[in-house]
Amino acid sequence: MSTQYERYQRRAAEVPLATAEYIAFASRDTFLGVPARRLDQLTDDPAEVVILGAPFDWGTTYRPGARFGPKAIREADYGAMDGYRPHLPTGIDPLGTLGVVDIGDVFVVPGQVELSLERITEVVERVARTGKVPLVLGGDHTITFADATGVARVHGFGQVALIHFDAHADTGEHQNDQLYGHGTPMRRLVESGAVPGHRFVQIGLRGYWPEPEVVEWMRSQDMRFYLMSDIEERGLRTVVDEAVAYASRGGVKGVFISVDIDVVDPGMAPGTGTPEPGGLTSRQLLDAVRRLAKELVVLGADVVEVSPPYDTAEVTAYLANRVVLEILNGMAERKLGV
Amino acid sequence: MSTQYERYQRRAAEVPLATAEYIAFASRDTFLGVPARRLDQLTDDPAEVVILGAPFDWGTTYRPGARFGPKAIREADYGAMDGYRPHLPTGIDPLGTLGVVDIGDVFVVPGQVELSLERITEVVERVARTGKVPLVLGGDHTITFADATGVARVHGFGQVALIHFDAHADTGEHQNDQLYGHGTPMRRLVESGAVPGHRFVQIGLRGYWPEPEVVEWMRSQDMRFYLMSDIEERGLRTVVDEAVAYASRGGVKGVFISVDIDVVDPGMAPGTGTPEPGGLTSRQLLDAVRRLAKELVVLGADVVEVSPPYDTAEVTAYLANRVVLEILNGMAERKLGV
Amino acid sequence: MSTQYERYQRRAAEVPLATAEYIAFASRDTFLGVPARRLDQLTDDPAEVVILGAPFDWGTTYRPGARFGPKAIREADYGAMDGYRPHLPTGIDPLGTLGVVDIGDVFVVPGQVELSLERITEVVERVARTGKVPLVLGGDHTITFADATGVARVHGFGQVALIHFDAHADTGEHQNDQLYGHGTPMRRLVESGAVPGHRFVQIGLRGYWPEPEVVEWMRSQDMRFYLMSDIEERGLRTVVDEAVAYASRGGVKGVFISVDIDVVDPGMAPGTGTPEPGGLTSRQLLDAVRRLAKELVVLGADVVEVSPPYDTAEVTAYLANRVVLEILNGMAERKLGV
Amino acid sequence: MSTQYERYQRRAAEVPLATAEYIAFASRDTFLGVPARRLDQLTDDPAEVVILGAPFDWGTTYRPGARFGPKAIREADYGAMDGYRPHLPTGIDPLGTLGVVDIGDVFVVPGQVELSLERITEVVERVARTGKVPLVLGGDHTITFADATGVARVHGFGQVALIHFDAHADTGEHQNDQLYGHGTPMRRLVESGAVPGHRFVQIGLRGYWPEPEVVEWMRSQDMRFYLMSDIEERGLRTVVDEAVAYASRGGVKGVFISVDIDVVDPGMAPGTGTPEPGGLTSRQLLDAVRRLAKELVVLGADVVEVSPPYDTAEVTAYLANRVVLEILNGMAERKLGV
Amino acid sequence: MSTQYERYQRRAAEVPLATAEYIAFASRDTFLGVPARRLDQLTDDPAEVVILGAPFDWGTTYRPGARFGPKAIREADYGAMDGYRPHLPTGIDPLGTLGVVDIGDVFVVPGQVELSLERITEVVERVARTGKVPLVLGGDHTITFADATGVARVHGFGQVALIHFDAHADTGEHQNDQLYGHGTPMRRLVESGAVPGHRFVQIGLRGYWPEPEVVEWMRSQDMRFYLMSDIEERGLRTVVDEAVAYASRGGVKGVFISVDIDVVDPGMAPGTGTPEPGGLTSRQLLDAVRRLAKELVVLGADVVEVSPPYDTAEVTAYLANRVVLEILNGMAERKLGV
Amino acid sequence: MSTQYERYQRRAAEVPLATAEYIAFASRDTFLGVPARRLDQLTDDPAEVVILGAPFDWGTTYRPGARFGPKAIREADYGAMDGYRPHLPTGIDPLGTLGVVDIGDVFVVPGQVELSLERITEVVERVARTGKVPLVLGGDHTITFADATGVARVHGFGQVALIHFDAHADTGEHQNDQLYGHGTPMRRLVESGAVPGHRFVQIGLRGYWPEPEVVEWMRSQDMRFYLMSDIEERGLRTVVDEAVAYASRGGVKGVFISVDIDVVDPGMAPGTGTPEPGGLTSRQLLDAVRRLAKELVVLGADVVEVSPPYDTAEVTAYLANRVVLEILNGMAERKLGV
Repeated sequence: MSTQYERYQRRAAEVPLATAEYIAFASRDTFLGVPARRLDQLTDDPAEVVILGAPFDWGTTYRPGARFGPKAIREADYGAMDGYRPHLPTGIDPLGTLGVVDIGDVFVVPGQVELSLERITEVVERVARTGKVPLVLGGDHTITFADATGVARVHGFGQVALIHFDAHADTGEHQNDQLYGHGTPMRRLVESGAVPGHRFVQIGLRGYWPEPEVVEWMRSQDMRFYLMSDIEERGLRTVVDEAVAYASRGGVKGVFISVDIDVVDPGMAPGTGTPEPGGLTSRQLLDAVRRLAKELVVLGADVVEVSPPYDTAEVTAYLANRVVLEILNGMAERKLGV
Repeated sequence: MSTQYERYQRRAAEVPLATAEYIAFASRDTFLGVPARRLDQLTDDPAEVVILGAPFDWGTTYRPGARFGPKAIREADYGAMDGYRPHLPTGIDPLGTLGVVDIGDVFVVPGQVELSLERITEVVERVARTGKVPLVLGGDHTITFADATGVARVHGFGQVALIHFDAHADTGEHQNDQLYGHGTPMRRLVESGAVPGHRFVQIGLRGYWPEPEVVEWMRSQDMRFYLMSDIEERGLRTVVDEAVAYASRGGVKGVFISVDIDVVDPGMAPGTGTPEPGGLTSRQLLDAVRRLAKELVVLGADVVEVSPPYDTAEVTAYLANRVVLEILNGMAERKLGV
Repeated sequence: MSTQYERYQRRAAEVPLATAEYIAFASRDTFLGVPARRLDQLTDDPAEVVILGAPFDWGTTYRPGARFGPKAIREADYGAMDGYRPHLPTGIDPLGTLGVVDIGDVFVVPGQVELSLERITEVVERVARTGKVPLVLGGDHTITFADATGVARVHGFGQVALIHFDAHADTGEHQNDQLYGHGTPMRRLVESGAVPGHRFVQIGLRGYWPEPEVVEWMRSQDMRFYLMSDIEERGLRTVVDEAVAYASRGGVKGVFISVDIDVVDPGMAPGTGTPEPGGLTSRQLLDAVRRLAKELVVLGADVVEVSPPYDTAEVTAYLANRVVLEILNGMAERKLGV
Repeated sequence: MSTQYERYQRRAAEVPLATAEYIAFASRDTFLGVPARRLDQLTDDPAEVVILGAPFDWGTTYRPGARFGPKAIREADYGAMDGYRPHLPTGIDPLGTLGVVDIGDVFVVPGQVELSLERITEVVERVARTGKVPLVLGGDHTITFADATGVARVHGFGQVALIHFDAHADTGEHQNDQLYGHGTPMRRLVESGAVPGHRFVQIGLRGYWPEPEVVEWMRSQDMRFYLMSDIEERGLRTVVDEAVAYASRGGVKGVFISVDIDVVDPGMAPGTGTPEPGGLTSRQLLDAVRRLAKELVVLGADVVEVSPPYDTAEVTAYLANRVVLEILNGMAERKLGV
Repeated sequence: MSTQYERYQRRAAEVPLATAEYIAFASRDTFLGVPARRLDQLTDDPAEVVILGAPFDWGTTYRPGARFGPKAIREADYGAMDGYRPHLPTGIDPLGTLGVVDIGDVFVVPGQVELSLERITEVVERVARTGKVPLVLGGDHTITFADATGVARVHGFGQVALIHFDAHADTGEHQNDQLYGHGTPMRRLVESGAVPGHRFVQIGLRGYWPEPEVVEWMRSQDMRFYLMSDIEERGLRTVVDEAVAYASRGGVKGVFISVDIDVVDPGMAPGTGTPEPGGLTSRQLLDAVRRLAKELVVLGADVVEVSPPYDTAEVTAYLANRVVLEILNGMAERKLGV
Repeated sequence: MSTQYERYQRRAAEVPLATAEYIAFASRDTFLGVPARRLDQLTDDPAEVVILGAPFDWGTTYRPGARFGPKAIREADYGAMDGYRPHLPTGIDPLGTLGVVDIGDVFVVPGQVELSLERITEVVERVARTGKVPLVLGGDHTITFADATGVARVHGFGQVALIHFDAHADTGEHQNDQLYGHGTPMRRLVESGAVPGHRFVQIGLRGYWPEPEVVEWMRSQDMRFYLMSDIEERGLRTVVDEAVAYASRGGVKGVFISVDIDVVDPGMAPGTGTPEPGGLTSRQLLDAVRRLAKELVVLGADVVEVSPPYDTAEVTAYLANRVVLEILNGMAERKLGV
């Protein structure tokens, strides 16, 4: 048996996190330079938010490449990687205010869908178990099944609302005859009960998918969704108002925010796998996530479907990086009561 | 005489449609997988809309490449090519509702402007003659002279309104000393009487062309046009309201919708030949064409000036594909009375 | 249950071949316009060579994208798609001389490694069973395990030599803890006995992988391999001479030629997933495969690891297209005895 | 001593302007074909506006490339380079109406920050001294210290307001331990008194820089700034109204307009060095600068931070070209009183 | 009649040369900064070589874009544009030694094939008439019919040999039913007698075109051609030896060198329209043209098929620029007798 | 004074090495995962080779971007970042055999040429002082003045030979009136005596620079150089033989190998700033450096002029990574006596 394989196997057996030492496309440094932590160091760490990557794209049906997303998102900035990002409107540095650390990437296995999802779920659960907020960098949208399940295992099935920005509902019954893929995570969450239909708010849907039978199922599950045509007609502000109200109903413990970068128009965010024209502007998305994170209790979040091979001048990776920062800003403002 | 040339000649003499068997840049499959038809099969076909390509770009004055447009537009999707596209807001599948077939590309000849235009005109006319709506994928904007003329030959000169989305008025007197080119089609249509000036509504004009003498001529012909500055000031909704009203006047039989993709801001739709900053957003264009196709009788349409060599991650081709779908959606909604 | 899913399931149960109707990234037309056939039409068809695609890239460890390879390779030409390509040096049209047809792409399932490999193996076997030569367009190199196994099932385990152009030996013991992937196909072939070690000739290896234990294993299996340093020193001509001799030993029935496009220098063939600098020139590869196909009995072939998202101006896809043509030319020259 | 070096030195000693004869990345023709002039020919020339380039990017902290900006901006058009650009809304040709000439690029020295700034300052001053309006094509934003200082030397320190479109405030105390760089020009202008803080209006700021201490300093200097969040909330129209009012206060002689192209969203303007998501649309910027130039007395302007290596299909260079034209249009409308 | 059109028409009637003032894609400066001349200034000018551009690509059958070739080739250098390029091996500056001037671009008309060819022919003839050597920057290969005809009109039909570097023979009988295009120029030259078949030497041919009937015709005309397989087998040095001997036979007055950049492998020269894998290296081409220009009397030359939209980092334009310089170096060495 | 600036200043005062915490474009991880070390930890470390980066490109005269070189070169691999790279021909892992560590990037200051060079020199000297071999990742070629000077300070002025792979001699007298830049480092080294002319061997020169006066000076200094035309004629093997002999003369202590990536043909290595067509192939360069490092005592090395913004699919960065590995392989083979 070869040495490299032995080392790999030993490592894989031990821990659920990998680095570039084992997967070449894993991230090699932390998000904007925040402190690096190991999963087993979290318990006593004062940090409130834990960033992790899920370099997984074998759930895609069309253009792959999102495996390079976590690395690209972490590095997409022109500023020093010093873990300090004071928000211009408020002067608040969310990284310091909340305490944000980065535990690297989950040890996913290329081509292994279910095993990889299990590992992601486990890591997210372990993070949430420490009372901290996991913020996952994808990866394709398949991972949200793992991400939200991990959070729900800790905070209770049915106790977490999911606010979902996306061009697509991702509620497919199956995907190429498989249960798990980037077109089905929301269905699986509803079915498992981790996030029941009435806990969903979807924003930015458009295009020609899924088909009416699926939309009918979504309605039957009491899922709330806002099409781009709704947003054009009623304004994003109103939509977000309603999302806040809807997501706060009935004793929910908090929300998980899932941002598929393709909610933004592909003309502004080309680096993604299943582009659907006619989306939000970057500005709209940034404002919306910050406001949500300020007005609701965030229990977890992910930013997915950034595919660097299709990006130009890294603009999509930059946008995803800022989506993370604006979520953190909203959380920091809430914490400080500003 | 060589075999290849003989075959080419024989084919060219026979029919006005070519495939990649004769022109390498012709499309090799149908729009999103709708059924393929031959021109001579249309009469008894129940389909109401016929898609055809015009891979013609030798009417451009600057960046060429639109010859690859029809192929790129037909293929620009991440979904299965199954001829089924249910619209998310309504559940209506316009492809099935209307019956949409694809007859491939017109047998244009690179470098031959007038011969190519004649062939396009002939094919469009023959399609319209069957009572179906021709929807032409360009190609540069020169082809609209052929497209609209073909429709007018069937429905009557002066009986068809032309709603024209574009950054440019395309009413040049001549182009490099020639009558036909992508800067002159609207002038030729007015002059020939196929579409008189008072049947024109132009939306999205901006920039520094054409010069005042030409604008003066446009006004003298009673052409209606809306600049981007008008749209910014008065709102696109109002402009579309007026367009509907204007295009419905005086016993017109219906409209031809011509969409130059450069009406959208080049930052969002870079794959085009004569980019003019400051345009519509993708969202605005998609909403506008659907609404027009719903509120008016569409007799023909074209989508032009997509130049794949200048595109990034195919975002412009995707946008053009969706423009086609949204026009079809409007038509389907009108048909179903929703 | 949704309509789309039902249709997909029904189709998947029926046949092992898919088209873009089921997988959006599948090819939509045939290789350079050769006639299309269904798998069940082959028996009575006079064609001697059958092209098929395997749009599979979930066996990659690094850059994905080879799922778009079959489509890109089939279309990479500036000539008419008329199934006629007379070779300039001889005037022979290998497509017509041999009879070449295209059955489209295997119905692979994104993210499902073993199921997909089984389907590829089955299709290749069924093609070979008809006495025709399967020529597979990849896809990542994982598929060669399926391709060569399918051929060996018909012509006999141990009865087929494998000539393998590659920067990498692809003899890894495991890959990320899995048996199947693009780093292990040759190991699996040796282990299963489909192609024993002494039937292997590898050409173009270089770089820093696999590790010495694996190279030792390769030697223990009597695999023959030529490093780029050997080629630089002794000349490619000599290496090919030896390859012909080695592959002809001991009553072998014929050869399977497997070309990983990364055998060519990444500076000349950038569109690939695991580029290793210092490779062959395009010219060298084209000459070598033609000569091999002329001097040996070809029982099957594949061309793999073309990743269009990383290509520039399609140069890598063009090269792969010509590798296919040169293999066919060699076969045609052999057939005609020129 | 070598001949080339001797020629270079002789030239450098003589005049502050260079051409491609001395710096390969200098522009080789004039802005849209306006007449070329030498600096010493300006005095008696009737032109009111003088375009010059500052191909300087060694003040950048991250992505360089803006040295190719002046050339790219001058050439970014699909129309004939004939110095004639009638504005579609008005028919006014600002190039002819104002008289616009181009004196080429300042003879900057790669890697020499201060010497280059001195030369830029000198040229701008000499242009302003003739009573004409200098319009500088950058280059990175470092040059605005030179540009505005050159104008202030003529019109008086403290007598010129500076309206600054940017994602960044550029008021850093130092940059990598240096005084001059693209993060500090506004600080230096305030400190030198060329443009005191109360003469500043900044529009479009966003993101996470500069830090609170610097923002505090900005406030202490009475600098007026509008964040993107302000613009979203109150509308750009209102913001521009206030900018006009603020910039007109207290006997100011006129304004200098400085446009950092990164004020526009990087999704729409990717060709820049320090992209900050969430910016203005192209349309918004074009409308704003035209209105400002119409309502205020423009004494100078610059357009900076266009970095062609990061651009796609030249869309960012086109946008910058139109920013220049819209400023000129505003000035022409003011001159004609329309 | 509009002003712009009037100016255009007046200009077009007057002279056969245009600039960017009339055609936006025309070059705006001279080749590497050599002196600019007007066509009517040549007679008394001591220069021996005259560079001109033919921004013509409407003779292409596949990818267009070569209209941007002349501009790109002229500018493709990192050195100062000072008209001075001492060759490293010899110290000779061919630009100064020979006297090289640039008269700009021929006033071609987009979409007008024959008119454009006539103008090119006329300009080349007028240049050759002054006793100078025309060196034409293309443009697609259609122009060689014009270029070589213009030279032959002066030096005598049948008196000029044509050495032709190309992947393709360009001897098609027709092209899409037309006489003129980039696949037929050599046929037309043979037929017209300007360059009879026995005066042709073609180097670098490969691939699958033209078909045997055409190759047979080439042989019947006594055209000499070297395939890449010949070059691989016998060495480029030998081939060039033979080319020199063949081109010198029978009282010929000199040679015209026509370099289609696609003779180089597309992996090294991607910016071209009809890429054919398996070509020369850049080094081989540069050495060959210099040697030919040194050993033969050059009466004219062209460099064609550079298509900037498909280029990467301008490498193809740089290569074409150096092909021009190496031809000039060979001529200069011959002149100086070194 | 702002916090960020204070931190920066404190850091800058302390140590000569920076990380991405201070310069955003600095590398964030080590070369292929070798162990990270601080400069002050080297003395007792058993490692024999120390990798460091010099992200400096403000010495370029044309295209910048090499500041991103060190990061790109370190990461350019598809294998796990585990510091283990067994060479396929020998099985030797040079990283482990030699002991290779990475100390990160020198704390250079954008826009400050001399200060940056001083810091680089100091770090290289301190590394060499520990008896280890510094291997510097550039950065533009200006840094070789610092790199080789740092080595010479330890091993003695005039005691180190410099083998220099490059398209350009880099012996310019001045560069834009400055002493230091990427066109002058070799001149400065000769003048200072760090590396006298007779210690130079330059390989791969070509093109049109420097001018004859400078070449004359090179000869007067007894510099040995091989043009590409020499290599074509005599073979690279012979040239390397002579280089070994020349570099070993006269009691030299060892060699410094400086590889400008533009020695390779730009068609194969497009990501560089001053591309000169007609260079070596990647294969040639890799073989040459390995052989030199095996046959000579390497005291230091650098790999420069990789400019990622101009690269395609990272092929140039990959090549540079392999150049480093091949140098290390040669050193490891020498150490082990194989």
